[in-house]
Amino acid sequence: MGPCPLLPHQVVIIGGGFGGLCAAQALAGLPVKVTLIDKRNFHLFQPLLYQVATGLLCPSEVATPLRHVLKHQKNVEVLLGEAVDIDTAGRRVMLADGEVPYDTLILSAGMVTHYYDHDEWEKYAPGLKTLEDTVRIRQRIFTAYEVAERERDPEKRKEWQTFVVIGSGATGIELSGMISEIAHNTLKGEFRSIRPEASRIILLDAADRILPTYPEALSKITEKALNRLGVETRLHTKVVDIDAQGVTVEAPQGRERIPARTIVWASGVKASPLARIIAEKTRAETDGTGRVVVNPDLTLAGNSNIFVIGDMAHVKSKKGTPLPGLAPAATQQGRYVAKAIKDRLAGHEQMGSFSYFDKGTMAVIGRNAAVADIGGWHFGGFLAWLTWLFIHLVLLVQFQNKVIVLIRWAFQYFSYNRGARNIMLKGKLKLPLSGKDSL
Amino acid sequence: MGPCPLLPHQVVIIGGGFGGLCAAQALAGLPVKVTLIDKRNFHLFQPLLYQVATGLLCPSEVATPLRHVLKHQKNVEVLLGEAVDIDTAGRRVMLADGEVPYDTLILSAGMVTHYYDHDEWEKYAPGLKTLEDTVRIRQRIFTAYEVAERERDPEKRKEWQTFVVIGSGATGIELSGMISEIAHNTLKGEFRSIRPEASRIILLDAADRILPTYPEALSKITEKALNRLGVETRLHTKVVDIDAQGVTVEAPQGRERIPARTIVWASGVKASPLARIIAEKTRAETDGTGRVVVNPDLTLAGNSNIFVIGDMAHVKSKKGTPLPGLAPAATQQGRYVAKAIKDRLAGHEQMGSFSYFDKGTMAVIGRNAAVADIGGWHFGGFLAWLTWLFIHLVLLVQFQNKVIVLIRWAFQYFSYNRGARNIMLKGKLKLPLSGKDSL
Repeated sequence: MGPCPLLPHQVVIIGGGFGGLCAAQALAGLPVKVTLIDKRNFHLFQPLLYQVATGLLCPSEVATPLRHVLKHQKNVEVLLGEAVDIDTAGRRVMLADGEVPYDTLILSAGMVTHYYDHDEWEKYAPGLKTLEDTVRIRQRIFTAYEVAERERDPEKRKEWQTFVVIGSGATGIELSGMISEIAHNTLKGEFRSIRPEASRIILLDAADRILPTYPEALSKITEKALNRLGVETRLHTKVVDIDAQGVTVEAPQGRERIPARTIVWASGVKASPLARIIAEKTRAETDGTGRVVVNPDLTLAGNSNIFVIGDMAHVKSKKGTPLPGLAPAATQQGRYVAKAIKDRLAGHEQMGSFSYFDKGTMAVIGRNAAVADIGGWHFGGFLAWLTWLFIHLVLLVQFQNKVIVLIRWAFQYFSYNRGARNIMLKGKLKLPLSGKDSL
Repeated sequence: MGPCPLLPHQVVIIGGGFGGLCAAQALAGLPVKVTLIDKRNFHLFQPLLYQVATGLLCPSEVATPLRHVLKHQKNVEVLLGEAVDIDTAGRRVMLADGEVPYDTLILSAGMVTHYYDHDEWEKYAPGLKTLEDTVRIRQRIFTAYEVAERERDPEKRKEWQTFVVIGSGATGIELSGMISEIAHNTLKGEFRSIRPEASRIILLDAADRILPTYPEALSKITEKALNRLGVETRLHTKVVDIDAQGVTVEAPQGRERIPARTIVWASGVKASPLARIIAEKTRAETDGTGRVVVNPDLTLAGNSNIFVIGDMAHVKSKKGTPLPGLAPAATQQGRYVAKAIKDRLAGHEQMGSFSYFDKGTMAVIGRNAAVADIGGWHFGGFLAWLTWLFIHLVLLVQFQNKVIVLIRWAFQYFSYNRGARNIMLKGKLKLPLSGKDSL
């Protein structure tokens, strides 16, 4: 069952992240009908999620309506829907509430937070992958100080003023750096019974250095900078249990209990459930994080009409190691796939394999401090921070947001204030908040 | 049991709205300890709620952290807590999770949405009084278009593209005007299967004219303007039932069913439950909307240490009619009460009665169109709109927000775009959304 000669070639893209959105845009002007399906109505600018989770930006500033971005591209339709299965034989994407036929399928559903064998930790230690996560984390951080202000028991107060970030990748250091700034700068002087600057911010990792995937030199720079900001870094420290009152860890000096009421999980992600589904249907391999191992041309063996791109794809780099789950990799893959579809429509079946142009990686530690690994050039400090600032501002999809985000950054830089702190609840207020109260 | 000579006079304020916040600020520098209790951690700028509910502003832009505003006023402490009862004999405010003693109590808990004898309508037709309401309404408006785009049945599509606003006060006309702009401008060209501009926006009221509390001349101007914007205004139309599929009304031409999937309730408010509680304890009267009838000095008979101000107070104007529930009335009362407390501490027991300086009222119809009733001067159109714009910008509490709100307004004015459209969910996506999915 090939494409019907009367209908245009139907390309279905699942996921409006960097890979999916880029593919849709790169298909502009081609004689194909593109259907972009996402379970949210926005493109999420994930690199700035941590700034929303810490009250610096508001959610909509990192969430650009997909239909607005693609408004003028008439060969694209955007559908709000959640893909639950793929009928590779019938060439249909099954939604929770419908189905969409495809000739060519582009899977770019990204990754979700991964708790390994401890999904029960999720309610105590939310991850930071979705816009909903940012609201949950933000509510917990700012509510913790409200509870501490009213708490009379000094021990419990300490617990409410202890923040544990698990995982020292880019997200972990960005979050811990920001939480430290909230404690030492944003909230300073706003309370009467507690001293926010007396808070403990602990960054845990089982690895032997922070930013394990970065060059070792940068790990050292980053750790020093975090410590200067007041973040305690604990390496070789494995989390063995998490509950509402704290974290239990296995450290070189033995087992230890860290009482803490606010815990964030930044240490694990796995491919979207769709990865497993498509792998089973096509007998493709998946790697340790559930990513689908794809051909050099990003297709699946025996299914040249199915592409898997972005974070959910395991693409081998020249060195044989899988490509990192970064926006540039996803966008490059999106453009590559669009080009491949164009070539095929033109009758050129043979495609060169995808090759990744490494633009490097960056992480922000705090104001004036970041680390960068660009083209083998490793540097940190203010210059890296400026570079980060510039790149991320340029990358923000929507023009309006760029200006507003810049202004927020400018205000915050000088005032240390954070506007987006509003705690929103569903039911009556009863402290401490339980998971269900929180919006 | 009077104030203890060793401790400073304890003033407790319940509610950080315009009245409560203003009272707290006006007590600066006095030898009193002020405790401001609110069930949210922010001052809500209610006049702009409708802009958040329609995706123009994001929630935090109308929610200023109370502790930030009061940061430098050392005689004020802010507590996140919900007052559930008042022990007038023991002079204690009972919280859901604690208690706070007072020497002088200022009640300024405002109003809540009122469904008369039909609380069951709440889940079908949310009101617009809280920040949570804005998110609910925004999610429903933008989700309705997503569902319509995927709906194949033309009848059901119409239902999803029909928006009913019940109540033609300022909130009702502001909401219906904004929804019409979303349909005709913001979303235009962003869909492939539906035409957003084909939406029906219906403004219902049982009264014989819209803006019933405004001068008649302005009602006419407003109705014409709304109709030009594409809003159907239906007067003499009483709602008799609301469910998930629509509204049933009693109109002059008889009973009618209006199928509609998005319904907003802008027709009733009543005083906070605390009004009934304090009225019972002090044998004070309450009026039809549950407001506490107060003495000319805003105290309660036999309880000169309890003030009730703002929307929850029934204060007689010179004409004998109660004062309107407007921000200026609340702020003036807040300052008056602070002054009264100051006088008492200075030993002057006799206070003049509160007198309201009427600054007039305004309502926005849409871009370039508003109506104003200022000092008996009635005018509409562009000038009124500019006046509204200026006044509200000046009134926004937090400086950062002023700039960002101004920029959002400027961008939106020229681009018609609305950035804050993000639909956030808790569970899996299944259209249409049920109340519980929505954040």
